Amino acid sequence: MGSVKIQKTPTVRRLPTYLYKLLEMQKEGASIVAAPELARYMNLTEIVVRKDLAVTGVTGQPGVGFKIPELVKAIRTYLQWEIPSPAILVGAGSLGHALLGYEGFEEYGLKIIAAFDADPAKIGSVVYGRPVYDIAEMPEKLRGSGIEIGIICVPAAHAQQVADQMVACGIRGIWNFANVSLRVPDEVIAQREVIAGGLAVLSVKMAQQEKQSCD
Amino acid sequence: MGSVKIQKTPTVRRLPTYLYKLLEMQKEGASIVAAPELARYMNLTEIVVRKDLAVTGVTGQPGVGFKIPELVKAIRTYLQWEIPSPAILVGAGSLGHALLGYEGFEEYGLKIIAAFDADPAKIGSVVYGRPVYDIAEMPEKLRGSGIEIGIICVPAAHAQQVADQMVACGIRGIWNFANVSLRVPDEVIAQREVIAGGLAVLSVKMAQQEKQSCD
Repeated sequence: MGSVKIQKTPTVRRLPTYLYKLLEMQKEGASIVAAPELARYMNLTEIVVRKDLAVTGVTGQPGVGFKIPELVKAIRTYLQWEIPSPAILVGAGSLGHALLGYEGFEEYGLKIIAAFDADPAKIGSVVYGRPVYDIAEMPEKLRGSGIEIGIICVPAAHAQQVADQMVACGIRGIWNFANVSLRVPDEVIAQREVIAGGLAVLSVKMAQQEKQSCD
Repeated sequence: MGSVKIQKTPTVRRLPTYLYKLLEMQKEGASIVAAPELARYMNLTEIVVRKDLAVTGVTGQPGVGFKIPELVKAIRTYLQWEIPSPAILVGAGSLGHALLGYEGFEEYGLKIIAAFDADPAKIGSVVYGRPVYDIAEMPEKLRGSGIEIGIICVPAAHAQQVADQMVACGIRGIWNFANVSLRVPDEVIAQREVIAGGLAVLSVKMAQQEKQSCD
């Protein structure tokens, strides 16, 4: 059990980058992209690119490539991003602000509609057009809203409490930016964003580069 | 060429999460961890955990587990995180603030020592103890500093220009939070942080969960 999901995680994680590139190419008027071009952009082998894209059900035409509009649609369908999902965010500090100000999310299937905080100085403010409510009002604001995604941007020490509150309010997918692992019921997904993961990749690539230039 | 590096990226990306867990356990007084416990925490199979940790050169003792201090040291050595590397950050907006305020970086081998910005309102301020300098002063401030890591937190439209300036100042590893792919010389590493990658994983897991509960 679970092994299929696990295998696919790196592929799923890469799909937004493919989507970004395809949308860029579309803006520039392209309608076809060849696998080698995507491979260069992604810094992956062609085989990996073909495997990645195969999860969406689209296979390119040999010698021609992938039809961009078809691939864009297939990636969005696979990720359930055809219609942006409404979400709330808890913790209107600097990271919360950064996420509320991020312009790309709607293209990526996410529409943050409100924020919550416990700080009286923040409650009642508006951040990039989104109201900041008192966290105590979360049950009332979410009741009947159908909102299922919650983003946690509070300090690690408060994250579990916020997660518990979210679950009690019907949230079933938590995107957790706090540096802590959350306990949630089986039917709830908690996806932890480990920002240092990218730093690890950078560190190792820099070390490899240094070694190469010394060889 | 390059295929070995590519294969290891998901492993490298996970190493900070292992490190976090091991440091937590160490704080609680543990000195040994068994592979199944790490597998549960990481939501991976034991085989994947053993393969991941093998890159650091440490293999657990059958029937006993891994020695935590040895594994912590091995992960830090592999990631070149034994001594935190000094770094600078460009773009002291909300994301820049969030990264400057992030307490975990030194444990993860990074020490942000200064920020730069082009906005006169920000230049001269101090953010979480770090000075914000005029971006025009970057060459002067970095000369002879030995600083090799630069973090980009500016809007996408300015990121390439900032990257070019960084490269001219001797930066050879760029951690790019702007939503754009950068062109850098071959000897420079640009690691792009695609924040939507985690969102994609969350979306797909939620869809799978929904499907399971309907089955």
